Amino acid sequence: MGAIQPPSPAYTALEARFRRIGLLGGVQAFLDWDTATMMPRGGAEARAEQQAAIAAVVHREVCAPELGDLLERAATESLDPGRAANLRAIRHRRTHAVAVPEHLVEEVNRATAKCEMAWRDARPANDFAALKPHLEAVVRLVRERARAKAEALSVSPYQALLDEHNPGLTEATVRRFFDAVEAFLPDLARQVMEQQAREPAPLALPAPIAADVQRGLGEHLMRLLGFDFAHGRLDESRHPFMSGGGDDVRITMRTDPNDVLSGLLAVAHETGHALYERGLPVAWRWQPGGDAAGMAMHEAQALLWEMQITRSRAFLGYFAPVLQEQLGVRAPALAADNLVRVVQRVEPGMIRVDADECTYPLHVLLRYRLETALFDGSLDVADLPAAWGDAMQRYIGVRPRTDGEGCMQDIHWMLGNFGYFPSYALGVTAAAQMVGAARKEIGDLDAAIGRGEFTGLLGWLRTHVHAHGSLRSIDELLTTATGRSFDPSALEAHLRRRYLERAS
Amino acid sequence: MGAIQPPSPAYTALEARFRRIGLLGGVQAFLDWDTATMMPRGGAEARAEQQAAIAAVVHREVCAPELGDLLERAATESLDPGRAANLRAIRHRRTHAVAVPEHLVEEVNRATAKCEMAWRDARPANDFAALKPHLEAVVRLVRERARAKAEALSVSPYQALLDEHNPGLTEATVRRFFDAVEAFLPDLARQVMEQQAREPAPLALPAPIAADVQRGLGEHLMRLLGFDFAHGRLDESRHPFMSGGGDDVRITMRTDPNDVLSGLLAVAHETGHALYERGLPVAWRWQPGGDAAGMAMHEAQALLWEMQITRSRAFLGYFAPVLQEQLGVRAPALAADNLVRVVQRVEPGMIRVDADECTYPLHVLLRYRLETALFDGSLDVADLPAAWGDAMQRYIGVRPRTDGEGCMQDIHWMLGNFGYFPSYALGVTAAAQMVGAARKEIGDLDAAIGRGEFTGLLGWLRTHVHAHGSLRSIDELLTTATGRSFDPSALEAHLRRRYLERAS
Repeated sequence: MGAIQPPSPAYTALEARFRRIGLLGGVQAFLDWDTATMMPRGGAEARAEQQAAIAAVVHREVCAPELGDLLERAATESLDPGRAANLRAIRHRRTHAVAVPEHLVEEVNRATAKCEMAWRDARPANDFAALKPHLEAVVRLVRERARAKAEALSVSPYQALLDEHNPGLTEATVRRFFDAVEAFLPDLARQVMEQQAREPAPLALPAPIAADVQRGLGEHLMRLLGFDFAHGRLDESRHPFMSGGGDDVRITMRTDPNDVLSGLLAVAHETGHALYERGLPVAWRWQPGGDAAGMAMHEAQALLWEMQITRSRAFLGYFAPVLQEQLGVRAPALAADNLVRVVQRVEPGMIRVDADECTYPLHVLLRYRLETALFDGSLDVADLPAAWGDAMQRYIGVRPRTDGEGCMQDIHWMLGNFGYFPSYALGVTAAAQMVGAARKEIGDLDAAIGRGEFTGLLGWLRTHVHAHGSLRSIDELLTTATGRSFDPSALEAHLRRRYLERAS
Repeated sequence: MGAIQPPSPAYTALEARFRRIGLLGGVQAFLDWDTATMMPRGGAEARAEQQAAIAAVVHREVCAPELGDLLERAATESLDPGRAANLRAIRHRRTHAVAVPEHLVEEVNRATAKCEMAWRDARPANDFAALKPHLEAVVRLVRERARAKAEALSVSPYQALLDEHNPGLTEATVRRFFDAVEAFLPDLARQVMEQQAREPAPLALPAPIAADVQRGLGEHLMRLLGFDFAHGRLDESRHPFMSGGGDDVRITMRTDPNDVLSGLLAVAHETGHALYERGLPVAWRWQPGGDAAGMAMHEAQALLWEMQITRSRAFLGYFAPVLQEQLGVRAPALAADNLVRVVQRVEPGMIRVDADECTYPLHVLLRYRLETALFDGSLDVADLPAAWGDAMQRYIGVRPRTDGEGCMQDIHWMLGNFGYFPSYALGVTAAAQMVGAARKEIGDLDAAIGRGEFTGLLGWLRTHVHAHGSLRSIDELLTTATGRSFDPSALEAHLRRRYLERAS
């Protein structure tokens, strides 16, 4: 892939094997996309069988015994820094795959499938008792998986889970980060809410807005931020997501006729994911080293565009006339000032995915505290509802009336995804740090945003973050790009500036 | 799969292996569908890599050495008739895959990719000289492939190619069929054209018709014929096709604002393919024995709905008011009689895919004669243009002015697909035979069609054809269903009845 081909036959063989694995991963991503967007409902069962068949092929490829020998031999070969980094990423992928015995993989899959099914009924019925045995089974099995990986990686079980989604991220980094968030954010959010309580409520936006109009606005916004429709699509799905990678990145939006802004903010979020995928290094395409540097960085890219940019005064100043023109409405509710009041409104809500920028990290903090307690054995699943209610009261000042709007609201744990939530809050912070660093380098960022110009910011991200794939660890990447590791004070400074000083 | 599980460990192991292969085949079909319908144009290169990666996986699975041992052992196991038939289908799939050495597979792939590229430029430029070396390379390599398969199957090279697409179909059957077609059809077509020349030309249909209106009509027609949208979709693509199978069957249409009927006839054609896939035996899903019984039968299913049904007086009598209502136009051109004149118009055209029902088999006859000559060595690629012109003159009475509308019009040979064309003409005949047999069993078929009722006919097809997958050879299947093997006299009778006697 570089100009010099060193005599590294084992490494070269590994690269060829992981190229195929990477391509098959792309196929898996498209199946997921199709399932959520295009598949007729009667195709679900066959699709699940197809997905299981290709997952089995990929798992077999990653775990193939001869790869173990190749990895040992490649470790003794002389490799340039890029290949050495790719070899680390290859080893990470394989270590996680082979650490867990086949039977445990299958048990986890069965238990999470059952738990998800039970959850789909139990959540609307607020019936935690019906969910409990299933979630207990999942926690028990994921503890086993975490122990198996912990042994292979010589780390703690919870860190092994963190490492699944964020290679190299340490438990200590995450703990320090959340301790700091707990120290400043509940107070800060309270101050903001008190301040906003003395102000008039924002005006309601025009409604209903037709789906095709919202979609047109979504496409307009995507183009504005730098999305290239020769290499991607926008479709509709029940929950917005991004899928694919490389030269074909697809995002979806959900249109609610009564809430045009939420749909657009989600488009900005998914566009951020998509721009990251499009910026990953072409020279390392289909190699583990060419993947994103973990989910915290992926969320950071998404949150950067959603939170830092599209919720800013500068952006809304530019976008308000666009919105008025595309909707064909000139109402005071669509003036920039009112749009700012709408998207910067802070309220003590129960639901994470509906939360404002200020309280959002508190929802994540709560989940972090509870899942680490589940994994150090200090919390049982049976005590989850009470612990959830207490933590909500402590961090956000409200207590859920039901478990449906409490500890059963998210799908992550049902699917066995523990150690994932921290990515969301780390991402918020990394986004604030990156915009801060970009601001220093490219001059008056707010003025550019106010003119609808984003190429400077995107170029900075491409150079300092995207182009490195996962050849650098997330900590290395963030430190090189912004001068610091995950820094909660960057989050605090941003929130103070925007929500108390009203300056962004 | 059945009630009794005989002690047949080798067969059972083969079934498990081919189930995975079948599922991966479904994934391949999905990628093809996406490529033609949804993929952004910049995704083509990555998609080709994904397709190659999964094709390599499938090829490796089918050729896995241990399957050879399993096949040998399964041959000695006691199997019920269904399993024995599935084992034959498994053996057919594997025999074709392992007969051709890996290097030859790759050489053919490279040569056909180059030939297709050359063809895309040469056809519009009418530049046969530019195409010639590429097509020569393809013919040379496919001859080699045919010889390799011929040796493995103990048949002639051309029969080995026929067998790729139509398991068990013999060269002798095909030759007898085309000899008979040559004996009656050129004369019959001439009579029809002379008769129609004495009549007024059909009235032009209203135009332009918007794409979404045509698509609505297409969906209406699909539902009418029995297509279930819980298990499929209709989309648009450059060339209409069907893809998928089992519980998720997708078809496409092309909308030409100036030709609403052509688009709808193609929808009927693709719906026929889709109904066949949906009717294949659920008990044998993802097994080779659950596949369609070859391409001649697949085309027969499609042509049955397109040619026998939707071009009939009975159907157009029912459909004319539907068309008038959906288009919101009540013009004489949309009266049933004029629609019949339009779709039953016979003309000596140059292009196969635009041909009418009467001359269509002559276009196929020509290709059959020329490709057998290419494979018995009596024709060189260099002499193709002249041979094509002579055959067109002889069979259809016209001579192409250019090679673009002559021997370069089809993509099949460019892709190395020799032995495929006969499926189209055999399918026309099988369709006539099946409708004849169904007519005897279910009473007044024309009256049912005239009321827009197709469940009787579809039920007959499900029972007599679809439900047998490829557990019976195409010849067995057709003979059991209609009392005869491929019978050109059924085609002749149908064409005389419709085009000379005006009775269908």
